[in-house]
Parts: sequence; structure tokens; C-alpha cells
Amino acid sequence: MASPTSRVRVHNFTISLDGFGTGADQTLKEPFGHAGTRLMSWAFPTRTFQNMGIHADVPPSVGIDDAFARHWGENIGVEIMGRNKFAPKAGPWPNNGWQGWWGPNPPFHTPVVVLTSHPREPLHMEGGNSFYFFNGTPAEALAYARELAPGTDVRIGGGATTLREFLAADLVDEMHLVVAPIILGRGERLWDGLEKLEERFTIESATSPSGVIHMMFARRG
Amino acid sequence: MASPTSRVRVHNFTISLDGFGTGADQTLKEPFGHAGTRLMSWAFPTRTFQNMGIHADVPPSVGIDDAFARHWGENIGVEIMGRNKFAPKAGPWPNNGWQGWWGPNPPFHTPVVVLTSHPREPLHMEGGNSFYFFNGTPAEALAYARELAPGTDVRIGGGATTLREFLAADLVDEMHLVVAPIILGRGERLWDGLEKLEERFTIESATSPSGVIHMMFARRG
Ligand SMILES: NC(=O)c1ccc[n+]([C@@H]2O[C@H](COP(=O)([O-])OP(=O)(O)OC[C@H]3O[C@@H](n4cnc5c(N)ncnc54)[C@H](OP(=O)(O)O)[C@@H]3O)[C@@H](O)[C@H]2O)c1
Ligand SMILES: NC(=O)c1ccc[n+]([C@@H]2O[C@H](COP(=O)([O-])OP(=O)(O)OC[C@H]3O[C@@H](n4cnc5c(N)ncnc54)[C@H](OP(=O)(O)O)[C@@H]3O)[C@@H](O)[C@H]2O)c1
Repeated sequence: MASPTSRVRVHNFTISLDGFGTGADQTLKEPFGHAGTRLMSWAFPTRTFQNMGIHADVPPSVGIDDAFARHWGENIGVEIMGRNKFAPKAGPWPNNGWQGWWGPNPPFHTPVVVLTSHPREPLHMEGGNSFYFFNGTPAEALAYARELAPGTDVRIGGGATTLREFLAADLVDEMHLVVAPIILGRGERLWDGLEKLEERFTIESATSPSGVIHMMFARRG
Repeated sequence: MASPTSRVRVHNFTISLDGFGTGADQTLKEPFGHAGTRLMSWAFPTRTFQNMGIHADVPPSVGIDDAFARHWGENIGVEIMGRNKFAPKAGPWPNNGWQGWWGPNPPFHTPVVVLTSHPREPLHMEGGNSFYFFNGTPAEALAYARELAPGTDVRIGGGATTLREFLAADLVDEMHLVVAPIILGRGERLWDGLEKLEERFTIESATSPSGVIHMMFARRG
């Protein structure tokens, strides 16, 4: 259970209509595998994502997509992510040279706990980005994250496997989920093993002119 | 390809957030298996479903759910359904006594083509309901349905297996899909084998106060 003053939040997590949070066949060049940019393309034009340094060739959008996206960083002191969001699946770290997909100054600007069963020394980068590699249960990872950033909210950054684990452990207080109207066919499913999840949340949905559907899950009680 | 004057339409077909069009473990008492009434409960209060004889203990609703539901019968001269919408999975017809889940006067009031590999004589019931049992490809079933009701639109009534086959064969012109915010976990998946289906349709979504999301798929070109 989260303490009332430090919520566990999910933002901008996007799945296909058939429930995949990422495609198959992740590579160094394609972090989302065969899904390419199709899952996240709704977000690129938003002012929030453009401010993160993700450049779309359009003027920044400030409509409903941005209205949801912009809460991403508010009161967040730390992110927890899975190893495959940080790096391609590769077993033990081949060398410690890999520094993520985001260049020298990643968009997090907080400590980031990277879940992995393969030990690695912390990685300190520009802009307040420090990556701590951690092996443990979701509850242990959450306790560790809160030590790194006491009193702030914790963002679960994905991918699908990691988010699924935190939902299964009933550790998520708020989840902003985006459903993109595409059928990916293969990849990592978010919903597996989460039968009746809806009973633990109130759920509200809103459609966007971009074609995606925003869903807000708020933990009951 | 459908002829321009006889469209192939889907209405009110409902899936869970994890993509199931029906639950697991269908029985005589529970046509939707463990899903019970959870998939279709959005529809019961609508005037359209109440007029079909599905009684909800509430005044008929005429909001967005009914606005979508009511197009169900317009210019429809025939429905095609899978055998498991008509009867529980049971191999050959145990006897010809089973007459569907709908009582003596089913809500279709047209010929209905029931896809099944097990032969059975046509069944004529009250209210213009005649069930024709047919073994063949989706294209063959469609040609047969059009012979039964020339010049009208054809409704694909489901279940998931049947709808998936018609989508795979690119025979659907319009599809009204409803996404219910529930995680069923098991059952029959609609989207399997339909990767990139979205490229063949324009898709528009709308949310309802009942919590479901209505999606309209219209075949491009
Ligand atoms: N759809 C979205 O909005 C969204 C958001 C973020 C990321 N993504 C994408 O999602 C993909 C990654 O998702 P994914 O499901 O493949 O993987 P993931 O959740 O990012 O990472 C899974 C890996 O994390 C490690 N891990 C997870 N739980 C652990 C635990 N309790 N203890 C120790 N290690 C643990 C394991 O790595 P080891 O093998 O090292 O032990 C596991 O293989 C990437 O393509 C990313 O770009 C999508
Ligand atoms: N979600 C919704 O809106 C919705 C709508 C309608 C129904 N449903 C529910 O969906 C469930 C049924 O779905 P389902 O996916 O299990 O099955 P289904 O699509 O109703 O029926 C599948 C069966 O139809 C026969 N069939 C299908 N294609 C055929 C073909 N080309 N040629 C010959 N036979 C063919 C086969 O029966 P044989 O084994 O006899 O050969 C097959 O096992 C029911 O619970 C129903 O209540 C849901």
C-alpha cells in the first residue's frame, strides 16, 4: 500500500487496441520493435513531449493529448523502469557503455531505478539523471525508490512487463493509459494475469482528435 | 468485396479491454461463460435492447449508448452468426430440439445463417425468424445470405470467432465495436491474426457515461 503522501503513478503508458505495450523484436535501433513509433506517435506533437526534446515537425499541440501528457512530471521525484525500457534485452550488461536511448541528458531529471537481475554500478548523467540498477520485488523497488526521493510521488515508467508486475502487486494508485487504435498482433501484453483489475479502480475515458483514447484509472478507497 | 448496395455491417459487438469477445467456459446457462453479463450490461438499459425484450429494471436510456445501438436493424435483411452464438459448443447437434437462447420469438425477425460444420435442417420460428445452418467460407456464407435477402444489408452477429473470420477475409464494410472497461483474462480474442487491420479502416471513437467506448470502423475507399 502506498502512503497517502507519496502516490505511485503511471503516465502516458500506451497500448494497442489488442493490448500490447510494445512490439516484438526489440533492437538497438527500434526500442519498440516492429511497433516502431506507432504506439507513441500521438504524444510527439504535444508541447510536453516537444519540451522533453522529442521533436515533431509541427507546432506544439496543447489540446487534450497535452492536457494528459503534461502531468507526467508533477511532484515526481523518482521513476522505476524495467531494464528493457533502458536497454535492449541482452542478458548481463555486455559492457557498461550503454547509457540508454536518450542521449547525454535524458528527460527524467530525477533518480531512476532500473529493474534488472543483472548487477551494475549506478550511472550518473547530466541534468540530475542517475540510474540505479536494482534486483528485487516491486514492493522492494518501491521502498528503494522512496529512499532515493522521500516525500515525492513515484512514477512507474514501464515497459509492459514492469507495469504489469506493479499492477499485479496492487501498488499503483493512478494510471493514465492511452489506447492507440492500432492492432499490433505481437509484442508484450499489458493485461495478462490481471483479470478483474477494474474492480480495484474507478475508470474514466476520453477520446482525442488524434484518434487515441485516454483512460484514467484511480485506485478505489 | 461487398457490392455498394448491400453492405456488411457489425453492430454492438463488445470486447473487454483485453480484447475478449466472450468469456471462457460457455454453458447452457451462461452463453458468455465466466464473463456473465459483464460485456453486454451497457446495452441492457438502452431503449433498443429493451424493445428487443431484454428487460432492465430501469427506464429506457436514449443517450449515446442507444444512439449507437438503434442502428442495429436498419435495412438489415439477414444475419450471419457462428454456431456458438446460437448454441453451446457441442459437436454434432445432440438432437434438433435446441432453438437458441432467445425463446420462441427471437429478436432477429429475418433469416439467420448459422455457420456450423454440422448439418441441420432449417428451423422456422415465430416472428419471421428462420435459421439456416451453413458450412462454408465467409465469402460463401455471405453469398448465401444475400440470396436469402437480396438487396439488403447483411449483419455479422458474432461471436468473436465468426467476426474475426469475416474481418480476416476483408468482408466487413462497417463495424460498431464497443470496448467495455473490464479485464476478462480469458475467453475468445477478437484481434488474433488481424495485425494492421486499422490500415483498412477509418476509425472514430466516442465515450459514454456508462463507461464503455464506442468505436466506428468504416472501410476505406
Ligand atoms: N507503451 C509505453 O507507453 C511504453 C512505456 C515505456 C517503455 N515502453 C517500451 O516497452 C519495452 C520494454 O517493455 P518490456 O515489457 O519488454 O520490458 P520492461 O518492463 O521494460 O523490462 C523487463 C525487464 O526488467 C527486468 N525486471 C522486471 N521486473 C524485475 C524485477 N522485479 N526484478 C529484477 N528485474 C526485473 C528484467 O530484466 P533482466 O533480464 O535484466 O533481469 C526484465 O526482463 C521497450 O520497447 C520500451 O521502449 C513502452
Ligand atoms: N461480444 C459480443 O458482442 C457478442 C456477440 C455475439 C455473440 N457473443 C458471444 O460469443 C460467443 C460465441 O463466440 P465464439 O467465438 O465462441 O463462436 P462463434 O463465432 O459464435 O461460433 C464459432 C463456431 O461457428 C462455426 N463456424 C465458424 N465459422 C465457420 C465456417 N466458416 N464454416 C463452418 N462453421 C463455422 C463452428 O462451429 P461448429 O463447431 O459447429 O463447426 C465454430 O466452432 C457466445 O458466448 C456468444 O454469446 C458475443
